Amino acid sequence: MIKITIIGSGNVAQHLIDAFAKSKAIDIIQVFSRNQKQIISNLDPSKITNDWNALAEADLYIIAVSDDAIANVSSHLTFENRLVVHTSGTAPLTSLDNKNRKGVFYPLQTFTKGKPIDFKTIPFCLETQFEEDYAILEKVAHSISNNIYAIDSHQRKALHVAAVFVNNFTNYLYQLGNEICLENHVSFDILKPLILETAEKLLTLSPQDAQTGPAKRNDISTIEAHESFLSDENQSTIYKILTQSIQNHGKKL
Amino acid sequence: MIKITIIGSGNVAQHLIDAFAKSKAIDIIQVFSRNQKQIISNLDPSKITNDWNALAEADLYIIAVSDDAIANVSSHLTFENRLVVHTSGTAPLTSLDNKNRKGVFYPLQTFTKGKPIDFKTIPFCLETQFEEDYAILEKVAHSISNNIYAIDSHQRKALHVAAVFVNNFTNYLYQLGNEICLENHVSFDILKPLILETAEKLLTLSPQDAQTGPAKRNDISTIEAHESFLSDENQSTIYKILTQSIQNHGKKL
Repeated sequence: MIKITIIGSGNVAQHLIDAFAKSKAIDIIQVFSRNQKQIISNLDPSKITNDWNALAEADLYIIAVSDDAIANVSSHLTFENRLVVHTSGTAPLTSLDNKNRKGVFYPLQTFTKGKPIDFKTIPFCLETQFEEDYAILEKVAHSISNNIYAIDSHQRKALHVAAVFVNNFTNYLYQLGNEICLENHVSFDILKPLILETAEKLLTLSPQDAQTGPAKRNDISTIEAHESFLSDENQSTIYKILTQSIQNHGKKL
Repeated sequence: MIKITIIGSGNVAQHLIDAFAKSKAIDIIQVFSRNQKQIISNLDPSKITNDWNALAEADLYIIAVSDDAIANVSSHLTFENRLVVHTSGTAPLTSLDNKNRKGVFYPLQTFTKGKPIDFKTIPFCLETQFEEDYAILEKVAHSISNNIYAIDSHQRKALHVAAVFVNNFTNYLYQLGNEICLENHVSFDILKPLILETAEKLLTLSPQDAQTGPAKRNDISTIEAHESFLSDENQSTIYKILTQSIQNHGKKL
């Protein structure tokens, strides 16, 4: 069994603990948490520590903390030359302290507190400073997921920006859709099957081929009707910018 | 059995024909199509006509054509005082000719040629000129779907605008995400589980509660890193506008 220590008690840490706990290939030997009460997983409480000096020898240390805490946390480790990875999509490999062998173990997914997730489908983006360490990280990732990718720091940055578009920005468009429904006394539930189908379409079509709507087909009268319907300035600005961008994009291709 | 005639042979018409063909409560007595070859469904060819005078008496005529053809098509009908509906999200009830009883039968979903869809989950937005006709339309919709809503023309307009945000604009963000992946030699497949989870999250959380990301948490250093990463002007403009909008939205709430 591969011995793992997880440092952190946030959303990602919690989900990783739950996933590894079910894996027969992995032994979570310790979890470091400043606040013991935060660990809600079914974990033996004796494995939880908030003392840097109490960290036992593990094959892998996974730092699952916020980006700006990674450097500080990794500098607190009292040992050397062990495999230490972070789980961030944006932090470079260099944010980890030089005294240990570095790596990245980035699960590209959105984690919601309390909502279980099927780890098998989560893509893990792996990077290590030394080639020999890649095999360990790969084994660990494979114990919980079927989607493993070797991704360097530049590619990871690109993925993270792209993820902002397809996750954060997309969810914001859902918010605006919800707002328009509320303002006009219709249930947002009516849009949910459409939202799901829009996402599921990508399993069979490229987003280029899936693009439809008034902007794409340059349907000026519908666009004008929509623009005059939207009285909220923010909604109206976003509508215009995205419509124009889709229209120009069509010309560019 | 309720006798239905479908006028049109596009995407929506095809999907409706397939769905009604499986329903025991509905009898498709005819399909009007200018181009007989376009009807790909397993329909008895003798039921297909392109002659306005050949249309037999039905309980319901569903005009499933493009928005700007509705008025013209409905004026071609040679009978009077029968129930005639269109399937558009934007066209008003008044786009139908006055000589028949009007209604709207709007399935709020995105239809892809050749991709089968589960009609049971599709929301049908119904409207009729006369109350007595609503019951017929409701029965027809219920024969293929479990999601029926009485939606007036104003609400339908709002839904259609909101659908542009959550479907067309969202798919465009998928396109930009795909573009960023291509430019940086990473597979867009890595983002697909995230895209699906972002949509599925809405089944348990409101979009407000589901919002995450650098803009939401006002993480200026990540936003600046993303902005300097994006060299494409279009991607960069969209990134900035949506980021600012999320930030301002947070203040407004």
